[in-house]
Amino acid sequence: MTIQDDLHQSQLQVEQTLINILSTQTAGDKQLLSAARYSLFNGGKRLRPHLVFLTGQMLGADMQALQKVAAAIECIHSYSLVHDDLPAMDDDDLRRGKPTCHIAFDEATAILAGDALQTLAFDILSEQPLPQVEAATQLKIISELAKASGLVGMCGGQALDLSATGKSITVQELEQIHKLKTGALLVSAITMGALCAKGTSQATLQHLAEFGHKIGLAFQVHDDILDIEGDTITLGKPQGSDVEANKSTYPAFMGLQGAKDLTQSLYQEALLSLSKIPADTTKLEELAHYIISRDH
Amino acid sequence: MTIQDDLHQSQLQVEQTLINILSTQTAGDKQLLSAARYSLFNGGKRLRPHLVFLTGQMLGADMQALQKVAAAIECIHSYSLVHDDLPAMDDDDLRRGKPTCHIAFDEATAILAGDALQTLAFDILSEQPLPQVEAATQLKIISELAKASGLVGMCGGQALDLSATGKSITVQELEQIHKLKTGALLVSAITMGALCAKGTSQATLQHLAEFGHKIGLAFQVHDDILDIEGDTITLGKPQGSDVEANKSTYPAFMGLQGAKDLTQSLYQEALLSLSKIPADTTKLEELAHYIISRDH
Repeated sequence: MTIQDDLHQSQLQVEQTLINILSTQTAGDKQLLSAARYSLFNGGKRLRPHLVFLTGQMLGADMQALQKVAAAIECIHSYSLVHDDLPAMDDDDLRRGKPTCHIAFDEATAILAGDALQTLAFDILSEQPLPQVEAATQLKIISELAKASGLVGMCGGQALDLSATGKSITVQELEQIHKLKTGALLVSAITMGALCAKGTSQATLQHLAEFGHKIGLAFQVHDDILDIEGDTITLGKPQGSDVEANKSTYPAFMGLQGAKDLTQSLYQEALLSLSKIPADTTKLEELAHYIISRDH
Repeated sequence: MTIQDDLHQSQLQVEQTLINILSTQTAGDKQLLSAARYSLFNGGKRLRPHLVFLTGQMLGADMQALQKVAAAIECIHSYSLVHDDLPAMDDDDLRRGKPTCHIAFDEATAILAGDALQTLAFDILSEQPLPQVEAATQLKIISELAKASGLVGMCGGQALDLSATGKSITVQELEQIHKLKTGALLVSAITMGALCAKGTSQATLQHLAEFGHKIGLAFQVHDDILDIEGDTITLGKPQGSDVEANKSTYPAFMGLQGAKDLTQSLYQEALLSLSKIPADTTKLEELAHYIISRDH
């Protein structure tokens, strides 16, 4: 199977799980449910679910447990996109070529849909025992997701990003923004997948987290490169939008070639972390390569 | 101790817990943390934490476990107020006589602060084992809070409420709105408090949930009455604001006296539910009385 086949397989898995979950949530407001569904099914790459599946399967975790974890993290990711797109935040009308939630519905519905998607993530992870996962470990999985999403994770990173827009920041500050805004959730996908497997050692968790940090940052640097080199149709957003929004980017700090060199060295460091794990890490290696070579 | 003393005691307990928790969340954006703190410490009554404490103590739960549950539910309540006040939602500039979060900070920060407060609730409940609570029960507590907050709970209720504003709805629809928007979280406060105690029977949980439903609805009907009879200074919001916002209220359906009669019968039904519980329910009875007699 190619990486594209693998990704597609993960997409199908997580989307079927999300469809099943949403079908149990019909007792509230119909429009809100529609907005939540619209936001979840927006053509996303499902990279975070894919990381959950790859890591968990590598270590022998139960597939049903991974499906729930994958669905939960995608709910968090989707909610963050809905809120980031709001007029008071990034004010984006399009996301992957489709109207953003507040355009397709309205702003109040988009705020609430984001809120409800966040709640749904924790609902999914707590509602029933995860197969083959001890209750204490299930609590750790929930804690991982919460830490990665909150004040010292994704929300904190988005706030740092907003306050940095239009200001002069250091490359260290840019790295901290990305580490919190996108890196923390990517690392949590990997960690949660690993926690679903019985007997994952602390050392393996540590190496996987390092791997996650490296590919998380590489993902972001590559995004900055794509913003310069990509085209609007492939990206699903206007090319050059970061530059236009006066956002700090890696190419602005170190030039386009410097940024490309950085993704290469992050990729090598990511592979080094994987090499310390006593399991077949081929799929994660392939994914790391995909992350720094994708065209959208 | 009077009911006011009890409430004050719960306020001190949950606020000290929240101060301790926020002091561990400093690694992200400083302004976001300030906005989260501002929103949590806004002079709230801490009714939900109080319900957690009263129910849990009545059944012999560990106080530290209750403090965490109380802090978590107050994070959810606070986040919902921050988002409800946003321009796209209720567009309120004042909350309990103080500028709302998006006025004191800005709209983007208010959206993110609400988001982060929701996350913090689940972080608090999953970070460490709750003392004297089994891991499987701790998962149930998290699930209770998630169900009460999400698509078929608080968020769903707020969406129903927004779509009903300015429209003609039935009294059954109004009850459904309140049941989801405010009732679900009040019931979860009681249920979570009870789950912290070892060996709480299913029957007791059921009676407590019925009690919660009744006082939850009574709380809302009494709010509608206060909106007509209260004054702006005591309420902390403009008197008559529901009528002005063209919101459906119980007095509009059944007249002021009809609404007062309804709170009385809900109060009696709440007491009946309590009478079936094999514990000293005096404090919960007092609280029920307070809920239908408070002047703000």
